Amino acid sequence: MKKSKFTRERIVDQALSNSSAQGINALTIGSLADALGMSKSGLFAHFGSRESLQLAVVEETIKRFTDEVVLPAMKLTPGKKQLISFFKHWVEWSYDPIRPGGCPMASAAFDFDNQPGDVRKQLADGFVRWRETLKAAIDAAKKNDLNPKIDSDALVMQIFGLYFSQHVFHWLLDDKEAGKRTIKTFSKLLD
Amino acid sequence: MKKSKFTRERIVDQALSNSSAQGINALTIGSLADALGMSKSGLFAHFGSRESLQLAVVEETIKRFTDEVVLPAMKLTPGKKQLISFFKHWVEWSYDPIRPGGCPMASAAFDFDNQPGDVRKQLADGFVRWRETLKAAIDAAKKNDLNPKIDSDALVMQIFGLYFSQHVFHWLLDDKEAGKRTIKTFSKLLD
Repeated sequence: MKKSKFTRERIVDQALSNSSAQGINALTIGSLADALGMSKSGLFAHFGSRESLQLAVVEETIKRFTDEVVLPAMKLTPGKKQLISFFKHWVEWSYDPIRPGGCPMASAAFDFDNQPGDVRKQLADGFVRWRETLKAAIDAAKKNDLNPKIDSDALVMQIFGLYFSQHVFHWLLDDKEAGKRTIKTFSKLLD
Repeated sequence: MKKSKFTRERIVDQALSNSSAQGINALTIGSLADALGMSKSGLFAHFGSRESLQLAVVEETIKRFTDEVVLPAMKLTPGKKQLISFFKHWVEWSYDPIRPGGCPMASAAFDFDNQPGDVRKQLADGFVRWRETLKAAIDAAKKNDLNPKIDSDALVMQIFGLYFSQHVFHWLLDDKEAGKRTIKTFSKLLD
């Protein structure tokens, strides 16, 4: 039982690493078994299908995202500083060395949008919760030091946008200042 | 000769449609041959490898993007209206019914960032050219009616960001107002 649990954790860790480098969409039982030096049947004992493996990766990613990005900023008082903290933690999350190819959720958002099924549903649920968290934080900030005339829905799309943008500029265009530049850009947006 | 050219065009059209729905990264000789009702060997006669097929798709997409997005806005006088025209054409491009799953370049940007090779290189070149075109248009607009204090690099990242953002909100989160909302948000950014 204990050994089996340890192995499941090791599998998920490797799956997270592969997903960062190649995408959740490219995750297969075969490629993961190779990376782990396990047999495919050994992996099937833990995950009965490719989809259940992808679902485990999305679930674990959302859990870590909540711990590393959402909760630390949640502790701050609503206001501009809190919004900047949300965004900064989010950008830093994508450069954590544990994610050698950046945020696996970003590419998954573009890969699964046309693939009906449980993975798409779980991804969309995670993004919707994050969107609603940010919107609530913006609305609360308006009661403190954020200009109440700012359109919350538009600002949420700008935050998501700057996040996706720095991802592409950093990883595809090799612009290693992209992360820092978007944090500065986001801070200015709030003035 | 003529028949062969026609067939190559038909293949590329189908490949573009598949790439919009499933991603350039998911494009294979086998899946495309199935979609066309052709034999794999027939397809191989036109494209000797999966990579050359993907390169043809990226090349044709960039060509169409230039015709449908870049050139129409280029005809306008530099200024805010021209910048809005660039962005509006770009958003409309992603909703053209000929692209049943939206812009194939957006998902490719996230899929190929960690895949060294010619496809990544060609994609990055296309994005860099588009980034430089937008930056030049912003710099020219500053000499007309755009606030000269605006940071051009930051604004370029905001344009890209709003584009990626509306793509995810529309296709993954089923928010069918996302495209319109980002055009409005972008226009306000220029004030």
